[in-house]
Amino acid sequence: MPARLKIGVVGLGRMGHLYAQTLVTGVPGVQLYAVADSNEHLRTTAMSEFDMPYAFADAHELIALAELDAVVVATPTNTHPELVSAAARAGKAIFCEKPLALTLQETEAVLEVVVRSGVPLQIGFMRRFDAAYQKARRLIAEGGIGRPITFKSIGRDPFCPKREYADPVKSGGLIIDMAIHDFDLARWLMDSEVVRVSAEGTLLVCEQLKEVGDIDNAIINLSFANGALGNVEVSRNAFYGYDIRTEVLGSDGAVMIGNHQHTPIVLLNRAGAHHDVTPYLMERFGDAYRAQMQHFVDCLQNGQSPSVDGTDALAALEIGIAATRAYQTHRIVTIDGLRDHPA
Amino acid sequence: MPARLKIGVVGLGRMGHLYAQTLVTGVPGVQLYAVADSNEHLRTTAMSEFDMPYAFADAHELIALAELDAVVVATPTNTHPELVSAAARAGKAIFCEKPLALTLQETEAVLEVVVRSGVPLQIGFMRRFDAAYQKARRLIAEGGIGRPITFKSIGRDPFCPKREYADPVKSGGLIIDMAIHDFDLARWLMDSEVVRVSAEGTLLVCEQLKEVGDIDNAIINLSFANGALGNVEVSRNAFYGYDIRTEVLGSDGAVMIGNHQHTPIVLLNRAGAHHDVTPYLMERFGDAYRAQMQHFVDCLQNGQSPSVDGTDALAALEIGIAATRAYQTHRIVTIDGLRDHPA
Amino acid sequence: MPARLKIGVVGLGRMGHLYAQTLVTGVPGVQLYAVADSNEHLRTTAMSEFDMPYAFADAHELIALAELDAVVVATPTNTHPELVSAAARAGKAIFCEKPLALTLQETEAVLEVVVRSGVPLQIGFMRRFDAAYQKARRLIAEGGIGRPITFKSIGRDPFCPKREYADPVKSGGLIIDMAIHDFDLARWLMDSEVVRVSAEGTLLVCEQLKEVGDIDNAIINLSFANGALGNVEVSRNAFYGYDIRTEVLGSDGAVMIGNHQHTPIVLLNRAGAHHDVTPYLMERFGDAYRAQMQHFVDCLQNGQSPSVDGTDALAALEIGIAATRAYQTHRIVTIDGLRDHPA
Amino acid sequence: MPARLKIGVVGLGRMGHLYAQTLVTGVPGVQLYAVADSNEHLRTTAMSEFDMPYAFADAHELIALAELDAVVVATPTNTHPELVSAAARAGKAIFCEKPLALTLQETEAVLEVVVRSGVPLQIGFMRRFDAAYQKARRLIAEGGIGRPITFKSIGRDPFCPKREYADPVKSGGLIIDMAIHDFDLARWLMDSEVVRVSAEGTLLVCEQLKEVGDIDNAIINLSFANGALGNVEVSRNAFYGYDIRTEVLGSDGAVMIGNHQHTPIVLLNRAGAHHDVTPYLMERFGDAYRAQMQHFVDCLQNGQSPSVDGTDALAALEIGIAATRAYQTHRIVTIDGLRDHPA
Repeated sequence: MPARLKIGVVGLGRMGHLYAQTLVTGVPGVQLYAVADSNEHLRTTAMSEFDMPYAFADAHELIALAELDAVVVATPTNTHPELVSAAARAGKAIFCEKPLALTLQETEAVLEVVVRSGVPLQIGFMRRFDAAYQKARRLIAEGGIGRPITFKSIGRDPFCPKREYADPVKSGGLIIDMAIHDFDLARWLMDSEVVRVSAEGTLLVCEQLKEVGDIDNAIINLSFANGALGNVEVSRNAFYGYDIRTEVLGSDGAVMIGNHQHTPIVLLNRAGAHHDVTPYLMERFGDAYRAQMQHFVDCLQNGQSPSVDGTDALAALEIGIAATRAYQTHRIVTIDGLRDHPA
Repeated sequence: MPARLKIGVVGLGRMGHLYAQTLVTGVPGVQLYAVADSNEHLRTTAMSEFDMPYAFADAHELIALAELDAVVVATPTNTHPELVSAAARAGKAIFCEKPLALTLQETEAVLEVVVRSGVPLQIGFMRRFDAAYQKARRLIAEGGIGRPITFKSIGRDPFCPKREYADPVKSGGLIIDMAIHDFDLARWLMDSEVVRVSAEGTLLVCEQLKEVGDIDNAIINLSFANGALGNVEVSRNAFYGYDIRTEVLGSDGAVMIGNHQHTPIVLLNRAGAHHDVTPYLMERFGDAYRAQMQHFVDCLQNGQSPSVDGTDALAALEIGIAATRAYQTHRIVTIDGLRDHPA
Repeated sequence: MPARLKIGVVGLGRMGHLYAQTLVTGVPGVQLYAVADSNEHLRTTAMSEFDMPYAFADAHELIALAELDAVVVATPTNTHPELVSAAARAGKAIFCEKPLALTLQETEAVLEVVVRSGVPLQIGFMRRFDAAYQKARRLIAEGGIGRPITFKSIGRDPFCPKREYADPVKSGGLIIDMAIHDFDLARWLMDSEVVRVSAEGTLLVCEQLKEVGDIDNAIINLSFANGALGNVEVSRNAFYGYDIRTEVLGSDGAVMIGNHQHTPIVLLNRAGAHHDVTPYLMERFGDAYRAQMQHFVDCLQNGQSPSVDGTDALAALEIGIAATRAYQTHRIVTIDGLRDHPA
Repeated sequence: MPARLKIGVVGLGRMGHLYAQTLVTGVPGVQLYAVADSNEHLRTTAMSEFDMPYAFADAHELIALAELDAVVVATPTNTHPELVSAAARAGKAIFCEKPLALTLQETEAVLEVVVRSGVPLQIGFMRRFDAAYQKARRLIAEGGIGRPITFKSIGRDPFCPKREYADPVKSGGLIIDMAIHDFDLARWLMDSEVVRVSAEGTLLVCEQLKEVGDIDNAIINLSFANGALGNVEVSRNAFYGYDIRTEVLGSDGAVMIGNHQHTPIVLLNRAGAHHDVTPYLMERFGDAYRAQMQHFVDCLQNGQSPSVDGTDALAALEIGIAATRAYQTHRIVTIDGLRDHPA
């Protein structure tokens, strides 16, 4: 039996805790070796729950552990570039929660370090590991719907975010924060790059976002290099549940991913038929989070490159920045033009 | 252009009015030539609505019209035998609402007259003309689900019937009144005869049925000659809507007919997802009623025999009587035994 | 009993024939009094089928009938302005298939005549008379989803149109021809006017459209005066069926109209679960076509104004022309700007 | 922090392995302390996978471990009575896979030992821990569908069992082996005892069952003490997937549990709409298996009695034996009569 991979998790917020838990209970052949978070309470909780050798206040101490094989970065986005660069320089394999950074320059700078260090890097676009999205991708790749014509995606969160979380300085704003998943799916499912975007945004419900200058709803039109079209809608206002749907229309059929029902039970009464709705993220993508971590570990164990890498992080961010700019300027923005005049 | 068929409708209650209306607006090539009903108000209403040459108080005057080609019998069930016999003797083609009669002896007596007269007779098992049931029958006949194994059918009405209507003396009781449609489907879809039944019944909700000795719910197990199984459930208590479902499990698949949603609209809110339910008979089978009358007319115009005839009426009634007796005696009843000891 | 309304139908193509048939079989209290079409075969067929007093080769002879109460205009779009104007001048009530005209100038000119003549005018936006869309509208108006935030609509036809039909000179092009229904729904359901649009279009499948300069797919972003957003997708390439869906996200819920299943039957086999898809227009909107004609007749009989009138025709066309221009120029187009620089 | 509960698993077949895995990864606060199986290969595999202190060939050595708190019995059914009795005598808490025994005498004998020993006993009716079934139970108990009238349940396996497995001597036969889950649900959801059953069975597809005298399909009618009705269908022939559905009709509504779709993705093409079907047991009830083990552990930690106990095992078996006898004798069988003439 080979030695178990030693993995450290940096950041013990919601996502970091999830990744730690997944490594302990859902991924065989690995050891949760260390965690790092400046918050002492989170460290203590993690130590009692997971029973791992090390827990640091300073992420760099974790990264410095010689025997550590890999680092999972799940800190606030603005710290990703520094931590990923440090882990890369230390020769660790890296899993980084999306997005890798909030600007194209930072993203490119980090990727340069990663490439130079020669370490594997996987980005947390977990939808690619969802069973339905995987089936859709396979179906499309095998020609099951003919030539892809139109990509449609809806991402709706069931509540307004906290002002601090949504602050565009930290999150990149609604479009980058939420639609980046859809932009990644767009490239992956359509197998073509987005070349041009237009966008509209509005703030109608989450009053607190006004102070930080963010919006709560946006719609973005996409044009692909191969002539295909797309539209992405993101919203913070689906108070009925977590509503994630994607469909691709092709020249020979269509594929629709996502549905609303969560529990397989229907009530019929004088008011009609009623069922529940998927409440939130983990109820929909819990298995995908597990599968993406499994993929990361499989790649490390087999010496293969993760299928979702830095170029994917860069490409999705480009679309996100272009769409944000399109919304702000009321103009159509090309990705090429973006590269000429980067933010 | 051939002369239009002249058709008379006997009985202007709910079903008779529907048949008259269908002949006027939904079936080309026919003329609603006469109606008959002892109720003057119904006659007057029909005359102002349909504009036909004759309206009689006495059904026999209608039947006596020499130029009339066909008669639609839509009177209360206990009058069917006499009217169908009279129409047969007068040489008219006959469409008779189900059931043809409430006893096997009466049914056989009527059928003898019909056969001797050589007139076409169609029975109102309208579900056979529903698009979904027709597709199911075709699919099964073509081997699409392999060998049929189990027939399941649910028939639930959205309200308790009036005491007078439900009186078993007039209606035959819950099982004959409602499940006769399912028994007909059973024979038609399984392509095998029912040989044995057991049944349980109960009265839990429609208090008024106690006085006339009827029940409001029943479940009936069926055994077919070819070894297949079946179960039929009928209920007067589906206050959420009209719930008609059938499924056939086969050795290579299954087919399910019926669903609950009526209008294609879903509301999503904090309480979940909601849609309406098919309210009642015509919303579900309006097209089938039209199609069955069209089939009757097509058969007359083409000199063909209707596909749902007197033997179907007899066979479905046999199952209904056997099931009623099984429920009443707490014993398993065979159709053969029934023939030896008829009611 | 009041005298029956005398109605004439101009144009006996697919829609004209449908309207004639609807008037004869589906709308009580009216008489199909005359038809007009230059095609002799269509006239002969109609006469044998419908049995009406008059059939003209020249529409103006029909319009000139003094005793005629109303005219249904179902000719090619480019003839609508002249015929509607003539009917208005003759004092006839008018039902006109959508769109009223292909340019804003023509539309305004016709409306001026109509207004001056004081005749009722109803436009064929039949979706407004569909049970599901009516329920949605009521639900939204009653506050059932809170404040409307985002309007989404998909309109996909199951086949490529003939080149002649699709010629933008006659049809207005894909966006005006198809999305005008969605633009009308947008205004009606959101209860706010569209102020700005952007659009992308592409030609990927229907090769024959290249010759006439049309596209087969388009996506259009909408901004409403009240800050709400919208997106409309139209396609000629849904070879799986007729796919018409609309949803409105609100601050307190969402409503989704449309589904794919046509016949209520599901097949389960080793390859999974399978059901059919709504094939085309009449299977989806047959009842709505009937209901809209009933509304027209009801309005005439009760002296009320039709609920879908010339201003609706103009407003939907404005959005259509703006969206077409936005697609052609790769720019965001405002409705106000359109009014300053009309096509 | 309290000491972790030490639990042993007897039997490392499919269910035993699942329970061991669940204890290791899915239930906090416990330690998989020992396993036992006469099959050396299974023991070795378990040791490398789970890393527990003990692995025995002989179950009695495991039961004899003084420090062990609880035993999970997952051996073939015919060994349950002896092992459960031994574990009870050793003072261990017991989780036993269903059924507890194949005869009423054996069941009663085991239960006597368990009661005398005063140890907790939980039976593996895992459907009671499924989210949908739990919601249904709560809904019914709160009066959400009024008074329960009819219980319907379908249990279809996607393949024929091996002859050895299905041998009624070991499994109890189709009705006891499969429908016992439905009989348990019937009592639990209807909150009333079954007093009378009739049944029909057939062997149409799984040829190999002829040799051991079993059938592959059965339908069972139920009568409840409170006048309610029921029907259970079990089949080995649902080659399209694992099809588990239950519905309860009440005087004020109905509740339906179960659906067919597994992955939330639909393909639309010229042949219609297509989706997959739940493949098998773990895809449907994986979470319920986890939840039932959690309940067992929670009860041990809190000193409470498991909610599914020996009386439930006995009552469900009574219905199963009555139904089997009803099918074999072609007679209606009462539970009271069964007690007078036990098998």
